[in-house]
This record gives sequence, C-alpha cells and structure tokens, in this order.
Amino acid sequence: MTVAPPARPRILTGDRPTGRLHLGHLAGSLRARAQLQHTHDLFVLVADVQALTDHFDRPETVHDHVPEVMLDYLAAGLDPAKVTFVLQSAVPELAELTLYLLNLVTVSKLRQNPTVKTEIAQKGFGDTVPAGFFIYPAAQVADIVGFGAAVVPVGEDQQPMLELARDVARRFNSLYGPTLVEPRAYLSAVPRLPGLDGGAKMGKSLGNAIFLADPPEEVRRKVMGMYTDPGHLRASDPGRVEGNLVFTYLDAFDPDPARLAALKDHYRAGGLGDVALKRHLIGVLDDLLAPMRARRSAFAADPAALQLLRQGSARGRAEVRLILARVRAALHLHVL
Amino acid sequence: MTVAPPARPRILTGDRPTGRLHLGHLAGSLRARAQLQHTHDLFVLVADVQALTDHFDRPETVHDHVPEVMLDYLAAGLDPAKVTFVLQSAVPELAELTLYLLNLVTVSKLRQNPTVKTEIAQKGFGDTVPAGFFIYPAAQVADIVGFGAAVVPVGEDQQPMLELARDVARRFNSLYGPTLVEPRAYLSAVPRLPGLDGGAKMGKSLGNAIFLADPPEEVRRKVMGMYTDPGHLRASDPGRVEGNLVFTYLDAFDPDPARLAALKDHYRAGGLGDVALKRHLIGVLDDLLAPMRARRSAFAADPAALQLLRQGSARGRAEVRLILARVRAALHLHVL
Repeated sequence: MTVAPPARPRILTGDRPTGRLHLGHLAGSLRARAQLQHTHDLFVLVADVQALTDHFDRPETVHDHVPEVMLDYLAAGLDPAKVTFVLQSAVPELAELTLYLLNLVTVSKLRQNPTVKTEIAQKGFGDTVPAGFFIYPAAQVADIVGFGAAVVPVGEDQQPMLELARDVARRFNSLYGPTLVEPRAYLSAVPRLPGLDGGAKMGKSLGNAIFLADPPEEVRRKVMGMYTDPGHLRASDPGRVEGNLVFTYLDAFDPDPARLAALKDHYRAGGLGDVALKRHLIGVLDDLLAPMRARRSAFAADPAALQLLRQGSARGRAEVRLILARVRAALHLHVL
Repeated sequence: MTVAPPARPRILTGDRPTGRLHLGHLAGSLRARAQLQHTHDLFVLVADVQALTDHFDRPETVHDHVPEVMLDYLAAGLDPAKVTFVLQSAVPELAELTLYLLNLVTVSKLRQNPTVKTEIAQKGFGDTVPAGFFIYPAAQVADIVGFGAAVVPVGEDQQPMLELARDVARRFNSLYGPTLVEPRAYLSAVPRLPGLDGGAKMGKSLGNAIFLADPPEEVRRKVMGMYTDPGHLRASDPGRVEGNLVFTYLDAFDPDPARLAALKDHYRAGGLGDVALKRHLIGVLDDLLAPMRARRSAFAADPAALQLLRQGSARGRAEVRLILARVRAALHLHVL
C-alpha cells in the first residue's frame, strides 16, 4: 500500500507582463518565490489580460513582455520542475469566473479599494477610468479562487485585495454552499526597494530600475550614477549610512552581513570613498546577477520558455476548469 | 455551378430567463421576431448569465425559467428551422470578450446609462449595486458584437445600449484595425403594453401579466378583473375608449381593424356593456393563444426544447469563437 505524500498548500502569485523584471521584484517577491517553491505548490500567473486593463492601447508591449518575464522568472531561479507557469489569457475560464464573482462585489467596494484609488490618481484617469481597470481587483479575486489558492503572498499595499478575495469566497460559500477556498495572506515583511533616483519605488517604466537582464556594464553605469550621502564630499569625511541609497541596496542584496556591518562602520568613521563603496555594490550585484544571466542565456537559446508556459497553462487550465465546474453547479447553470 | 444564396443579415435579440413570457413580450418583441425570422439570420439569446446579475441570490429561478422561456419562444411561433436559440452560459467566450471590451468603456459612461440608472433606482441598489449589474451593458455589447450581429431590434429605451455597442465597435476597430461589425438599430415603433393594473409596463414579476402559458380560464379571470372606463357605470352609458385598458389590449391584438373600429363607435355611443366588451377581448386572446398552447404542449411532451437549445448553442458558440479568435489576434494575445 502506497501513501500519497501530503499535498503542498497551493500558492498563487504573478506579474503583469508590461516590462522586464528588476531588482525591486527580486527583493520584493522573486526571492521569496524561489524559497516557497520548495514547500508549496506554486502557481505563477503571467497576467497578460490584466496588463491590458491599462495597456489596452499598447497590446504589443504586453505581447512582447510575456517571453521576457518568463525568462526573468527562470533566470531568478524559479524551477520549472517545481513551479507551474500560467499565461492568464490561456485560461479564459478565469474571465467567466470573474463575471460570476462581479455579482458579489459592490461598486462602492471597488471604488473604496485604496490600491485602485491610488493608481487611478497616478494614471490621471479620473472619471474616465476604463471599467476593465476599475474592476480588476475582482478579476484578481477570480484568479486566486479559480486556482484554489490557499495562500497568497502579499505586500502591505495588497492586503485590501486579499481581504476582497476572502470576502467574496465567504459570500459565495454562504450563498451557494461550500465551493471556494478562502485564501490566507502570506505577508512578506520585505520593504520596498527604492528606485535609482531615490524614488519610493523601483518601477518597470520609471527609468529608475536595474533589470535582471541588464548586462554588467549597464549595472556598473547605473550604480556609478547613484546618489550617496550628499554631505560626503571627500573620501576622508565621515558619511551617513541611513538614507544612503547604496547602503539600502547593500542591505537588500549583500549576502555577508558581517562584512556589510564593517563597511558601514568604515563609511561612518570616514576614509571609505563613494567610488570604492559603489564598486563593492557592483561586485555584490555581479555575484547575484551572473548566474541569472547564465540561466537566461540557456533558456533564451531555445523556445523552452514559451514551451514551459504552454505546459503550465494546460495544467493550470485543468485546475481552473475543475473549480469552475463546481461554481457553475452552485449557480444552477444548465449543462446542455 | 451553384450560386450561394445571399447571406441574410444577422440579428441578435433575446431575453433574461427570470420569468415566463407574457403578452407584453408578444406585442413588444416576439411578433416582430416571428416576422424577422423569414428575412434575417435570427439569433435568440437566453441570457441566463445576465439574469444572474440581479438574481444572483436566486439562481434556481433563472435555472427553472430557461426551459420555460424556450417553450414560450416555440409557442409564440419562432421556428427552430429558422432561428438559432443560444443559452448564454453555454458560450463562455462571451465572458472573455466582455472583459476585453470593458477596457474600452469608461466607468462614467456606464454610470450615465439611463436604463441602468433607472433600474438601480427601481431595485433600490443605491451605491451597493453589484458590479456585475453595473457593467451588464458592456456584457450586452459583447453579446451583440460577439455574434457579429448587423441588426439589433431595440425599443426606445434600449437605444443607449445600442449606441454603446456602436461606440465600442468603432473604438475597437480604430485602435486595433477592422475587426468588429458595427450594429444598426432596428427600431420597433410598438408602444409598451400596460399591465393589467394599468401600470406603465406588463412585468414578469409585477403580478400584472397575462402569460403566454396561461390556461383559458386564467385569461378569462384576468380579463374580467380589468379596469375599463370608471365613468361607464351602465351598459347604456356612453363610454371612453382612450385610456380604456381593454381597448388598449384590443388595439394590440384584435386582428380585425374594421370590427374593432365599429366596436369603439358602439362603446362611445353607449349600449355596449363592459362584460360584453371583455368577452370580445377574451375571444381575441383565445384565438391568439390557442395555437400557442397547442405548440407548447407538442414541444413540452418531449425534451425537444432543451435539445434545440443545445444545438443552437453549439452553432452560436462556433460563431463567437470565430470572432473571438480575431479579437484575440487584434489584441496580440499569444497563441500557446
């Protein structure tokens, strides 16, 4: 008699393919995913349909970044033997589920969503916000419950989205009987990585990012252009570590805490020049990115990335279909 | 060499299966459809998914009325050899298309939709309107352009919906290249049939309807309870024809205009009692409904109605898939 191994809890996470992934993604989500893939049934969604909600006038951008983002995932160490990569548009059942779940979400709830509120203001949409963008939190809920995710990694700012998913799952189950998994948040305590310009966030399209695919000379150039402590004029001056962007990056990526602590002491005391400090960061980033570049080249050499996405999407679609069949039965829809 | 017959223009129309169809539907749409089926490629959509937008807490009601509405269609003379009957939930591609089209509709446009505005007020939704209900005009647009309908029969109050469909088709075509058919309105001049209570509209769930499936004694009872001219106390009194509900119904259904004109003269002059007048209406309605009852019994005796819906849905789904493939290509979505 064989004993089935205990099922690993399913996680859903993903990205919108609107640009290449960068160090901010690495610090904020990719490293955690590379850990979680060993202990969880990790689904990673390349959310091209959601990307169209604010890129509907640039569909080529979304199209072109699907293989790029896949290569970024593989470069960052997500293991195709462990992770199921799914292209959102290859699972149209998610759209059907979205429509059903929209009946359980009020317009005022969507309007109060702080993330969407902020984005609407940032994008200058005002009242001309496209309805597709306005309802995208409900589409995210469909992604989460459609894959039957038990756990969703979220940053602080995504908690309202997860709360919505929990609300909708509860409401569905109470109206129609137990059908959907109510997902739990996996709160990551990782602070946001600021952009090269010191802006609060490194952004795909803000021109302030170091991309995972950047070649070494590009990383060098970008680091050399970073601000440090504006009061640190000569190498011999004492310098400030707090708020110093180079140290913020080192905090995020230097694998050797003891060495980093010594470096900070040296900088504070004076005698460590900015160029030497930046060279150290360049070395750290090179060590981090070199194996990623190697993996990227290996996968980019053949059509493996899209092939993996095809396989994963087929598996993902089968999972969503199972859950959608239960949803349709709960809604008393006819089976013709 | 054979010559293909010229393609008949395609029409999309339909109903939400939330109740049985009644004389208001007959006067407002079913009679016109029975005409149009001879000259057009008529698609009739049983809109169960849309019905859920305000019946999400009563899915059994929607489920149970799907076969009822099909029987009503067949009873009313829609010919399954000419008409394609489609169950909305059997064409999930419409949901996918809805999500894509929602990117081309602004929230403010949806909020300004006069039909939705009125319905939100009527249903007492206020700001707690479910998002599924709020966006249903966009789902209707997806139905229309998804089936490639060239013509849509609309009443006065549905013109904003058709304008939205035209706007969205134009916008899609100008953003992504010619893809969608821009539908034309087929404006029906038929006035709304008032309810038995004199209310502005006969409604499925207002308790003021004569249903196509009502047995003769039920029709008799309902007609006998109708208001006529409140000033017409004795048969010998002169009576008013205008605003007299019985004459409004006769205007809609009496097939003999000369006879009806004589009846009106008689009533105006005095000497025609209300009971005699109502018996005339009962006779007219019996002549109208008797063949419908016969057809209904014939179809209800076997599972033909759902079988026809199955066949039509398969044909309809194939049509929508063709158009959706073009839409997906226009949006540069990957074919995995």
